[in-house]
Amino acid sequence: MSGNLPKAKSGRTGELALLRQIRARAAQSSASGLRLGIGDDCALLGLRPGEEAAVTTDLSLDGRHFRLDWHAPEVVGHRALARGLSDLAAMGARPIAAFISLGLPRKLATRNGSRPAWVERFYDGLLALATRHKTPLAGGDLAESPLALADIVLIGAVPRGRALLRSGTRPGDTIYVTGSLGGAAYGLERLAKLAGKLGRPSPPRLLTSQNKELIAHLAPEPRIAQGLWLRRNGLASAAIDLSDGLSTDLTHLCEESGVAAEVNAAALPLFPGAELAYALHGGEDYELLFTARPASRVPRSIVGIPVTAIGRVIAHRPGHPSVTLLTPEGPQPLAPRGWQHFA
Amino acid sequence: MSGNLPKAKSGRTGELALLRQIRARAAQSSASGLRLGIGDDCALLGLRPGEEAAVTTDLSLDGRHFRLDWHAPEVVGHRALARGLSDLAAMGARPIAAFISLGLPRKLATRNGSRPAWVERFYDGLLALATRHKTPLAGGDLAESPLALADIVLIGAVPRGRALLRSGTRPGDTIYVTGSLGGAAYGLERLAKLAGKLGRPSPPRLLTSQNKELIAHLAPEPRIAQGLWLRRNGLASAAIDLSDGLSTDLTHLCEESGVAAEVNAAALPLFPGAELAYALHGGEDYELLFTARPASRVPRSIVGIPVTAIGRVIAHRPGHPSVTLLTPEGPQPLAPRGWQHFA
Repeated sequence: MSGNLPKAKSGRTGELALLRQIRARAAQSSASGLRLGIGDDCALLGLRPGEEAAVTTDLSLDGRHFRLDWHAPEVVGHRALARGLSDLAAMGARPIAAFISLGLPRKLATRNGSRPAWVERFYDGLLALATRHKTPLAGGDLAESPLALADIVLIGAVPRGRALLRSGTRPGDTIYVTGSLGGAAYGLERLAKLAGKLGRPSPPRLLTSQNKELIAHLAPEPRIAQGLWLRRNGLASAAIDLSDGLSTDLTHLCEESGVAAEVNAAALPLFPGAELAYALHGGEDYELLFTARPASRVPRSIVGIPVTAIGRVIAHRPGHPSVTLLTPEGPQPLAPRGWQHFA
Repeated sequence: MSGNLPKAKSGRTGELALLRQIRARAAQSSASGLRLGIGDDCALLGLRPGEEAAVTTDLSLDGRHFRLDWHAPEVVGHRALARGLSDLAAMGARPIAAFISLGLPRKLATRNGSRPAWVERFYDGLLALATRHKTPLAGGDLAESPLALADIVLIGAVPRGRALLRSGTRPGDTIYVTGSLGGAAYGLERLAKLAGKLGRPSPPRLLTSQNKELIAHLAPEPRIAQGLWLRRNGLASAAIDLSDGLSTDLTHLCEESGVAAEVNAAALPLFPGAELAYALHGGEDYELLFTARPASRVPRSIVGIPVTAIGRVIAHRPGHPSVTLLTPEGPQPLAPRGWQHFA
């Protein structure tokens, strides 16, 4: 099969017309390293001399990572791309190209009179974010599926040997996060309440409202610029993006670095209104967590986003937890309790 | 989320153990360009000086591209990877790394006593083919899903500006295919009959049997070596892999090159027993179709696989079909009738 978006297998006229339109729109994206996009067996991407490629894939499923009855198509498209871009941010990579494999029930790929099809609005959301991050859509696949699903692939570039890694932090390092934590889970809680009241939410209305916590859930902003800044300034000894929640992601970082960590509960930059549990386990905040040597001069904000010290790296001791939460009631083991989405 | 295989969200012990095992097995693969594999936010891949990256994605869904009740897990894994490798072959790219996003019902990721889980056997099939083509598994994603699905991503490398493309052929060029056509569709027909008789087929038995046509369907061999040979020898003016069927894929090539084509029905290298319709529309043969200037000296076989001239490129005339089939009864328009899989 072609690896490149989008072809209809069956030749339904309306579907083919949609696909041509998507192809035309995708081709408009700026192309930092994209030499050949949609239309051949593979896309072709160039790197600059001395660079290597960073590659990440993220699968989103209806009922697990999004809900067709809660999330507008623009939101599903935005969030799918944001997940992938956030992985590039965590490595300090600049985006080169995105690929999206879509499995959709037929009705989502079909126009209802003059109203745009679900899949068109999905691309609206995805391409708006892609354009902001100068990430051309270079291909993908499209298949009819009883379950709506989107698998996003991001290719980035980073100078060889200079990527920010999960490994590399040492006891004594300070742990930082960008932005605030718990907003996405808090927004999801509020969305669930609104969805019950309103039926399917209308995202343009919600996004232009004062509901900032809904935006944290519906339209998270990947920290590409902050990751690039950290990599270029050589400040971070390790980094990861907060996609599964602080407890899970910090545990991953500790395991890859062979260390443990203490987090100061009082220092966590809680999203206004969010509970501590949302910040610890909520996931999908897409902020960056990074570590730096104690002597490093870490600024209070990076490219406009606040940076907060939340704890420190300690030695790993067998039989002890990877992550300990320091609270007024004393230290507590902080076991990974990964984000369960809608499970 | 991490772009890298595989993490369990829920921490079920059996599942985590499986995932660790997969990670360990994946890490054993040889790594031509893989600098960092499973375990960080992204994988890191290096290119040689003067190379560019070729990227392709292919989505396989239960009930559409495979059937859990017909195809053993090894077969699903093999076929998923073969689809992606075949796209690299069509560009003349050497494989660097594969990524696999899996959505699976829980029972397919769970061991039943001492018997390996479905997902383990899926990786058996995928990794056996990956090893033969020196393609390390560098990451992916895993999610619980009511529908079994596999999205494969292949990254290859090709000298800059030297990839085989769908565009580039000219009127007068000769059209060639590798191997034989129609075997996969013929094998699928036979498998359907066998599956009806036997219940779920046992692939080791089927694959060691004399049923060569089943192998064409169950275990197609992507033409990586032949694609590399064509690219290195500069013989092909255009190329595509036969994944959707000759009628569809040759139409794609004609559209991208702005030409039309005549195919001589009598010249088609039919798989023994296969009908003409299978060769024309069957799909999934994963042979290469390429064109060459009339003066080119195209050998009768490339790296052990026969090569057959099947027609020629002609000028595109508006209102005329892209592809014409020359038969004893006269010329017939050959409209694309893409492979419908199990739809």
